[in-house]
Amino acid sequence: MDKKLILLTNDDGIEANGIHALYKTFVEDESFEIKIIAPEFERSAVGHAITVFDPIWVKKEYRDGEFYGFGVNGTPADCVKLYHELLGVKPDLLVSGINRGANVGENIIYSGTVSAATEGISNGIPSIAISIDSYTEPDYDFSARFAKYIAHMIFDDSYLPKKTLLNINIPDLPEEKIKGVRITTQSDAKFKEYFLKRSDPRGRDYYWMDGEFLEISKCDDGDYCAIKNGYISITPIQYDMTDYSKIQYFKKWDIKIND
Amino acid sequence: MDKKLILLTNDDGIEANGIHALYKTFVEDESFEIKIIAPEFERSAVGHAITVFDPIWVKKEYRDGEFYGFGVNGTPADCVKLYHELLGVKPDLLVSGINRGANVGENIIYSGTVSAATEGISNGIPSIAISIDSYTEPDYDFSARFAKYIAHMIFDDSYLPKKTLLNINIPDLPEEKIKGVRITTQSDAKFKEYFLKRSDPRGRDYYWMDGEFLEISKCDDGDYCAIKNGYISITPIQYDMTDYSKIQYFKKWDIKIND
Repeated sequence: MDKKLILLTNDDGIEANGIHALYKTFVEDESFEIKIIAPEFERSAVGHAITVFDPIWVKKEYRDGEFYGFGVNGTPADCVKLYHELLGVKPDLLVSGINRGANVGENIIYSGTVSAATEGISNGIPSIAISIDSYTEPDYDFSARFAKYIAHMIFDDSYLPKKTLLNINIPDLPEEKIKGVRITTQSDAKFKEYFLKRSDPRGRDYYWMDGEFLEISKCDDGDYCAIKNGYISITPIQYDMTDYSKIQYFKKWDIKIND
Repeated sequence: MDKKLILLTNDDGIEANGIHALYKTFVEDESFEIKIIAPEFERSAVGHAITVFDPIWVKKEYRDGEFYGFGVNGTPADCVKLYHELLGVKPDLLVSGINRGANVGENIIYSGTVSAATEGISNGIPSIAISIDSYTEPDYDFSARFAKYIAHMIFDDSYLPKKTLLNINIPDLPEEKIKGVRITTQSDAKFKEYFLKRSDPRGRDYYWMDGEFLEISKCDDGDYCAIKNGYISITPIQYDMTDYSKIQYFKKWDIKIND
């Protein structure tokens, strides 16, 4: 059987432990051939940024003396867009992560990890994003195995609909404490930021963004709620942002152009 | 009557003609008080990026000797998040633009202009984004007046639903050639990019992203189709990216965690 080509990317940078955990777990599986195209440096919270006014440098990166992957001085979306230039063929699956920090609720609109997967489905590549709900360096082993398990489901039994990615979030718990898997929606949970104001020695003002993650909706089928209750959250995500529920409402507005 | 507080922002930078056209048009209307918080420099295609690991510098910018607004060395989303620090009160309306270049189809996921408005509704501020379908410097006058007209509709007669922004795109036509207004959906139209590969004098590879905008769906209710046919496009946009149509499908997957 032909090997399935897996493209790994992330937003924590090609040196990060999360993508290396995916690499180690997938590469030992003979069903898969692994390629890495990832940002050279950490690119968290870049949202769906792309690099259009600057050149994008690509470097071959080595690990233990062996070619490891392409390091790109661009965003996660840039990395995915470059697949054709760098690989010559379309990957069978894109796996973005493993991100340190959950990508749930409104946070997903800021997430480089999820945006790489969005770029994947926009390019016709089945895609999953995977993150752990931890801001300290977690154990990535279980998450990497879970990603591989989902990859096998996609290839063996199931079918990932076109233009739908899977946004997977793993609670920061030992494997035996994880209660199960929930298919979820994007929670109405918001990162409540605040700013620390400082002045430099010349009196110029600057701000540091900081904040905390708050649940603001009731706890029902949402991704945030699932991980906080000990479940793996899997959310199907698409990128048509039209608010279809309001189309008829706005069609009733009497908008003229010659007022 | 109390004046309505209008916050202007953009992704082309505080010096851009598009935001200045909005400023001139809104400031002469006694119903409005105008504030500007905008990136110091052009920040196109930053998507919904935020600045979390670097300080955000804020500079007071002057125009013709008068205070004009706050220039922020951050992204459009940063600018909106800073509203409370810089203004002390919540604006009654956010207007993001006027962007040079349409923000339609899949392009809206890369758009700093739209992401500022998304950040607005996420912060409970009624928000509109406005762009002109032109990549050369257009005449912004009609678009600015149209934005003001919509602002009056929002305050006087109508009601912008919470968590829904209006993404307005103006065709690049003389006012008298514009055929009308269409309430649209986000077209299934994609920016088809390609890369120019170059090598520097030391032999290192780099890439320039370039491309063209292609319509790939049939021309029905989409934003791209409306502007190409001479209509102003108004799309209601929200940011819950859950693919609700696939929830039941994935619930049938037999996902175990102890395989």
